Amino acid sequence: MTAEANVGVVGLAAMGASLSRNLARHGYKVAVYNRTYARTENFMKNYASEGEFFPSKTVREFVDSLEKPRVAIIMVKAGQPTDDVIEELAAVMDKGDIIVDAGNAYFKDTMRREKAMAARGIHFVGCGVSGGEEGALLGPSMMPGGSDESWERLKPMFEAIAAKASDGTPCVAHIGPNGAGHFVKMVHNGIEYADMQLIAESYDLMRRGLKMTPAEIGDVFEQWNKTDLDSYLVEITAEVLHKVDDKTGMPLVDVIVDHAGMKGTGTWTVQTALSLEVPVTGIAEAVFARGLSGQTELREKAQADPFDGPDPKFDVDDEQRDDFIEHIRKALYASKIVAYAQGFNEIAAAGKHYGWDIDMAEVARIWRAGCIIRAKFLDRISEAFESGTADISLLFAPYFKSGIQEDEPSWRAVVEQAVRHGIPCPVFSSSLAYFDGLRSKRLPASLIQGQRDLFGAHTYQRVDEPGVFHTLWTEPGKPEIKEK
Amino acid sequence: MTAEANVGVVGLAAMGASLSRNLARHGYKVAVYNRTYARTENFMKNYASEGEFFPSKTVREFVDSLEKPRVAIIMVKAGQPTDDVIEELAAVMDKGDIIVDAGNAYFKDTMRREKAMAARGIHFVGCGVSGGEEGALLGPSMMPGGSDESWERLKPMFEAIAAKASDGTPCVAHIGPNGAGHFVKMVHNGIEYADMQLIAESYDLMRRGLKMTPAEIGDVFEQWNKTDLDSYLVEITAEVLHKVDDKTGMPLVDVIVDHAGMKGTGTWTVQTALSLEVPVTGIAEAVFARGLSGQTELREKAQADPFDGPDPKFDVDDEQRDDFIEHIRKALYASKIVAYAQGFNEIAAAGKHYGWDIDMAEVARIWRAGCIIRAKFLDRISEAFESGTADISLLFAPYFKSGIQEDEPSWRAVVEQAVRHGIPCPVFSSSLAYFDGLRSKRLPASLIQGQRDLFGAHTYQRVDEPGVFHTLWTEPGKPEIKEK
Repeated sequence: MTAEANVGVVGLAAMGASLSRNLARHGYKVAVYNRTYARTENFMKNYASEGEFFPSKTVREFVDSLEKPRVAIIMVKAGQPTDDVIEELAAVMDKGDIIVDAGNAYFKDTMRREKAMAARGIHFVGCGVSGGEEGALLGPSMMPGGSDESWERLKPMFEAIAAKASDGTPCVAHIGPNGAGHFVKMVHNGIEYADMQLIAESYDLMRRGLKMTPAEIGDVFEQWNKTDLDSYLVEITAEVLHKVDDKTGMPLVDVIVDHAGMKGTGTWTVQTALSLEVPVTGIAEAVFARGLSGQTELREKAQADPFDGPDPKFDVDDEQRDDFIEHIRKALYASKIVAYAQGFNEIAAAGKHYGWDIDMAEVARIWRAGCIIRAKFLDRISEAFESGTADISLLFAPYFKSGIQEDEPSWRAVVEQAVRHGIPCPVFSSSLAYFDGLRSKRLPASLIQGQRDLFGAHTYQRVDEPGVFHTLWTEPGKPEIKEK
Repeated sequence: MTAEANVGVVGLAAMGASLSRNLARHGYKVAVYNRTYARTENFMKNYASEGEFFPSKTVREFVDSLEKPRVAIIMVKAGQPTDDVIEELAAVMDKGDIIVDAGNAYFKDTMRREKAMAARGIHFVGCGVSGGEEGALLGPSMMPGGSDESWERLKPMFEAIAAKASDGTPCVAHIGPNGAGHFVKMVHNGIEYADMQLIAESYDLMRRGLKMTPAEIGDVFEQWNKTDLDSYLVEITAEVLHKVDDKTGMPLVDVIVDHAGMKGTGTWTVQTALSLEVPVTGIAEAVFARGLSGQTELREKAQADPFDGPDPKFDVDDEQRDDFIEHIRKALYASKIVAYAQGFNEIAAAGKHYGWDIDMAEVARIWRAGCIIRAKFLDRISEAFESGTADISLLFAPYFKSGIQEDEPSWRAVVEQAVRHGIPCPVFSSSLAYFDGLRSKRLPASLIQGQRDLFGAHTYQRVDEPGVFHTLWTEPGKPEIKEK
């Protein structure tokens, strides 16, 4: 076999097939390989006419069909299957070749793999790919991490197949070394959890609190999509809410079981933030809200043995309804900014911790198209990081600061109603609590430090002099502990 | 050397020294060893008169001084130091001997160590010990995990040195195999984080919202300690708030820097709950609140470039003040039950996942004295689990259900005021949102499932028939995906 394919894709399930077709559509000759050859045959049958594909039956054949330095993109299941494919490829590849893992790997696995491959002279690129099947086919947002050398080789290809923002810029950038790309993709997904939960809470407030129909609420989201909230998720929310179930004629949303699934990236985002000591309250509450929705036994018990609660209908009469909808829009926007600010803080903390040099403006820029959280306001986020005003937190960038400041009264009004009428808004209220905590000159953490010093001699600092202090909290029967 | 010591302690820092003295006080002959011999000498100088101690200069000498089957209790730093000591002991111990790790090890480390030691015929017992230095000396709450055989040997000794509940029962029980003890101790600490944050929020509401002084608030906590809230943490809160700083004459709490420290067990609790898919919103928000309190750069920026916000003073006039304080007490109680319910759910989930057979009533019983979260209402929790009414959640046990139901209006009133006046109450509001989520017949998770099916073909379930469904969300320009 002549080595004439420009790039290869391993794994021809939905995502891998779409990525292969995307590459071919941009003029690349694409080697394709799948463990089960039937899937490769099927792929060729359906898509051979779309470009130049080189199907292989074995990994050796696949690798031999690639021009050097070789680029093999893996799109297989995370975990052991990915390790297996990497090992098979590395066994027959040469020094200087590149393996790209385009799956949703945990960033620490990517760091481990990159290290192992580097020791064998092979470039390993952990590349976050967002946008689902549609993105992979028509243009995803791509977050590659890895060596500068590999980026030189991949750049033209990735820029060709990536989504293009409205200004024409491709939504791909070299995020940083080893795990940086998969880390940023992980946080992207975490933010997506918060964003979706915020939209769900807004819907719930209108549905239960304002007694609106799904279609009416769909109209509201359609309107909101013309404001600062302009985004893919708001757009598809309108679509979901307008969808009528063929079988029952009911709004589809009422037919769907209210048990939200998850695949782990949100969980990883929160677990990692905890290790990095970065509060990501919005993402955490969103992950927990999905978790609670799925606790069937607990929820069934709560229906069988119910708690009394207030009437969920808000104290909002018909003339005030539109005003209150606007309050909800503002509350959504303010909470969303908090969730994004927390997510970016996590990326910044990881960048510091792992020695990645991550350009936050670039991250916001490549999320502007192709990915699930693509949104108009990412232009503003990018500008904010570019200007240096978001270094400590996005909340301090003038555009967002004044936005939050303007929306704050509405935010409080909405959470108050939700609390009074018993509609759970965990991310709305948690984001507001974070905002109020951040604003507080003094937090009651001083009391916690006092308690910790009393029961565990954990010591504390004083506001009026440097040093570490311990109080003698002696009482009869308590052992005396010496001043530290 | 004659092997006449009944038990040995390795590590004579504060906790190890106190535990050794506790053992000696109960008539046990205690071998003591510390890597730096000076510390052993110092220990002997101070405490030799309290009982029969056998100081050793080497691990070999230490092990030789123990009667068989030997019991060596390790109280050294978690992580590598613990592994090192285990290895040194195991090298000279015999089959059937017992190593007890009484430090705050991560339960997965304990599982790994137990497995490795079991292969060598040595019993390894991961034992959570709560109560700090005072507890270790006067009677801690103890949570040992390990083999039944080791428990037979340890039981009389541990029952002698453990704290005694008001009914005389010792606060120690065999939690389960391998990591079960350290797991339960970890969740104990997580609950402690939530409990302390709830108390801190209550304080903050009275301080900023009702403009009360620390001493006045201390009086309130003293009163609360005569109610259902009767607990060690409430008791010491009164003590902390009444403490006047010697140097300035100010309330000590105002002199302490409001940056709460943490040592990792709260973080582990939340990370583990995320893996087990158990919502522990109260503990998570408490950990994040400590995290936020310590973000100096962020908080300084928020003072230098401040956000406007509402006046924190509540709409509560002087005659209503006592009523509002009672609302806060009820809100604290209700939130606290939620935090405990979530923590117990995490233990139950782990018990299932790891195949531990944990007796929840027993767990509540051994927390009644000696540990930081000791509280009167643990009697009630224990009864609830015993009666089988708390199996799904503590919230459904009649005593707690009616308590929450009674306190619910106050809970909402307090969170409403906090939201309106900008005082952050992340655990109050998060616990209430969890409660309202649990109560909800339908959650907006159905919308999330719709979104996920639209952008990722993740499928959904229907309320009216079994199976897994996918909708054709086709629009021009979107690839068509086949019905699953």
